[in-house]
Amino acid sequence: MSISNQLPTIDSIIQAHQALKQQKPLVQCLTNSVSVNFMANVLLSAGASPAMVDNPEEAAEFVHFANGVVVNLGTPTAALVDAMKLAIAEANKINKPWVLDPIAAGALSWRGQLAADFLKSKPIVVRGNASEIIGLAGLGSNAKGFDSSNDPAHAVDAAISLLEHTHAVSASGEVDHIVAKTVLDDEEQYWVAKIKGGSFFFPLVTASGCSLGALVAAYAAVTNPFNAVVSAHAHYAVAGKKAHLKVDAPGDFQREFLNELYKVTTEDFEAYLELSINELQVA
Amino acid sequence: MSISNQLPTIDSIIQAHQALKQQKPLVQCLTNSVSVNFMANVLLSAGASPAMVDNPEEAAEFVHFANGVVVNLGTPTAALVDAMKLAIAEANKINKPWVLDPIAAGALSWRGQLAADFLKSKPIVVRGNASEIIGLAGLGSNAKGFDSSNDPAHAVDAAISLLEHTHAVSASGEVDHIVAKTVLDDEEQYWVAKIKGGSFFFPLVTASGCSLGALVAAYAAVTNPFNAVVSAHAHYAVAGKKAHLKVDAPGDFQREFLNELYKVTTEDFEAYLELSINELQVA
Amino acid sequence: MSISNQLPTIDSIIQAHQALKQQKPLVQCLTNSVSVNFMANVLLSAGASPAMVDNPEEAAEFVHFANGVVVNLGTPTAALVDAMKLAIAEANKINKPWVLDPIAAGALSWRGQLAADFLKSKPIVVRGNASEIIGLAGLGSNAKGFDSSNDPAHAVDAAISLLEHTHAVSASGEVDHIVAKTVLDDEEQYWVAKIKGGSFFFPLVTASGCSLGALVAAYAAVTNPFNAVVSAHAHYAVAGKKAHLKVDAPGDFQREFLNELYKVTTEDFEAYLELSINELQVA
Repeated sequence: MSISNQLPTIDSIIQAHQALKQQKPLVQCLTNSVSVNFMANVLLSAGASPAMVDNPEEAAEFVHFANGVVVNLGTPTAALVDAMKLAIAEANKINKPWVLDPIAAGALSWRGQLAADFLKSKPIVVRGNASEIIGLAGLGSNAKGFDSSNDPAHAVDAAISLLEHTHAVSASGEVDHIVAKTVLDDEEQYWVAKIKGGSFFFPLVTASGCSLGALVAAYAAVTNPFNAVVSAHAHYAVAGKKAHLKVDAPGDFQREFLNELYKVTTEDFEAYLELSINELQVA
Repeated sequence: MSISNQLPTIDSIIQAHQALKQQKPLVQCLTNSVSVNFMANVLLSAGASPAMVDNPEEAAEFVHFANGVVVNLGTPTAALVDAMKLAIAEANKINKPWVLDPIAAGALSWRGQLAADFLKSKPIVVRGNASEIIGLAGLGSNAKGFDSSNDPAHAVDAAISLLEHTHAVSASGEVDHIVAKTVLDDEEQYWVAKIKGGSFFFPLVTASGCSLGALVAAYAAVTNPFNAVVSAHAHYAVAGKKAHLKVDAPGDFQREFLNELYKVTTEDFEAYLELSINELQVA
Repeated sequence: MSISNQLPTIDSIIQAHQALKQQKPLVQCLTNSVSVNFMANVLLSAGASPAMVDNPEEAAEFVHFANGVVVNLGTPTAALVDAMKLAIAEANKINKPWVLDPIAAGALSWRGQLAADFLKSKPIVVRGNASEIIGLAGLGSNAKGFDSSNDPAHAVDAAISLLEHTHAVSASGEVDHIVAKTVLDDEEQYWVAKIKGGSFFFPLVTASGCSLGALVAAYAAVTNPFNAVVSAHAHYAVAGKKAHLKVDAPGDFQREFLNELYKVTTEDFEAYLELSINELQVA
């Protein structure tokens, strides 16, 4: 598959953020019931537009209006899965970027098989926590993922193996790890971008990870995949850091995080973002 | 169909608000997944009671307990649509007021047909944004609505055409436009009530429009349809204005808006409401 | 069925609270659409972990990962009910504690029958408001429950009758009433624990009652049933009281309650908890 050959920089992140605010991409969300409301508010606060068109009757039709699609396996139902299949097929047909969030794919057999099938349909980005990335990569060899470490650093090898099917893979955690490949003059290079997360309150706000997947889809409508996933994580981390400074408990963090997603400026990226990008030696 | 022959005034709005707080009408909500939680909290803060009984097995039975019903097409599923049909039929049979919120009816074909069918079942009020009202009115002539202007002033002609099937039509936006017809001594008159909205943060809080549709159903249980829709929009606008004065971002607006829905007083309506009602010349 | 023979005390509550924070029990929630998001955030703020695995394909499989299960009848659908049946059967098979929340069981016939059937499967605790407890107990004799008093004191006889099928029954309200039975040396004794609720804002925050049911399931993973239900109500009441002191409207109460669920300390239980336990004379 075609891949990016430019590395994200603070400038490319800031440009993507400005493009997001100007273009207000419409993100079609086929997602779990816990996340629908918060995900919509995250997209709105960040500068994008949500549309939760997730039934089999309308999912494919709506892809034509959408600028990006997110498919999240948090609470699948038979009808929702039908809608996901139709939306993915249509997105691939008309080249709309779509993001896969394989929640608990390594732990449960039905969604594990669904995630493996969806992965073969080549999402533009896969986003999950470390256990989910390890679980998804290991499905063929019965790795479970559910009990794995939550340290994203341990998910790098799994993420590399998923690059057969996608442009970039992110594993969220205390330090987000984003793995991608570039090709220049027939030379393949592998990279890991690390972004220091914004707050230990994130895991205490349900659907904050799911909503990040939707924001990746929004950024994928305005920039290349590697830059999209890095920009979404950067936007999250900067807003999270600013919010964290003002609160001491999860109820307030949820509110303040939405405020800061909305308020983030170019200067904030420069002041708060802790990003490193390094080449990976892949055998 | 029978119609109102009295025009809303600030006094009739204040009376409706007091009646709402005393009677706490029970609103049955058949609505989209994004809105369920916020809609329930909006009704509770405003003084009403929510009940999301939305399955085909119980929807008609519950109409007998409800004082009003809202039918919102945001995320229809086959089962939810069955429940809507049963609830609408029962509401009409036993004269319970019900409100139609035709989300994206002009843009998507399945829900467009559903909205057109539901409209023929004569909701007491239709509430939407300008594009949705234009889309719903234009379904017969293939108008889409989805790409239309969001200025409610452009939805007035569409709203008038819908009065064949309903008592009042509201198009929400920066200035809400509410269109209704009165008949006195066989003389028909058409009216547009304009209410200046409370905050530019409303579109950044998901389900705030949907929840207004539920509040219209609550008011429809305590006053006539034209006064109900104007009172619900007035309650929203006054609470929104008060909330807007205190916040600078969407996360805080959501919280402060619920606070102010709960706190709104008679004096607040007098101090903050910007309402005009004018006769429309209809050919 | 086996029952507890120790009475809850402030010390046993504090121990349960510490065990909850250390063990972070994973609660599988099969619950209504209105509650999913808030319930997950309540569990997270309180120190537990949520997982809304509620489809028939995965519900039984996930019970093996869960430390407790809550089954809430707020918005049942055919598929959700199938998942509940499978999860209950598996939980009983492998001795995982599960809690029944019979929302509106006395008012609607389909869910009333479901609640009666589920009750026979012996939940470890039944939690509801007074009307629901009365309704559930009275199903055999056509009592409806829906219009009953909301005073939990009136639900004590109904609660006692439910002890045939469960270890403890709680009726939430201004003063929560929790009824349980102990057996020591073949002597049966019945008890009512009363906990003064924390705030009149609770009924204005949707799903606050449902989320308490989930918290009971979390505590049931770390202590005996009577102590679990008393500890969950105590945690709620103390956090609610602390939150109430800081706010004057429901939008802020929701946020501050999540904050205080997270912040509650041993000293807070000692300072704020109003608990009494008395023996009941049962004919």
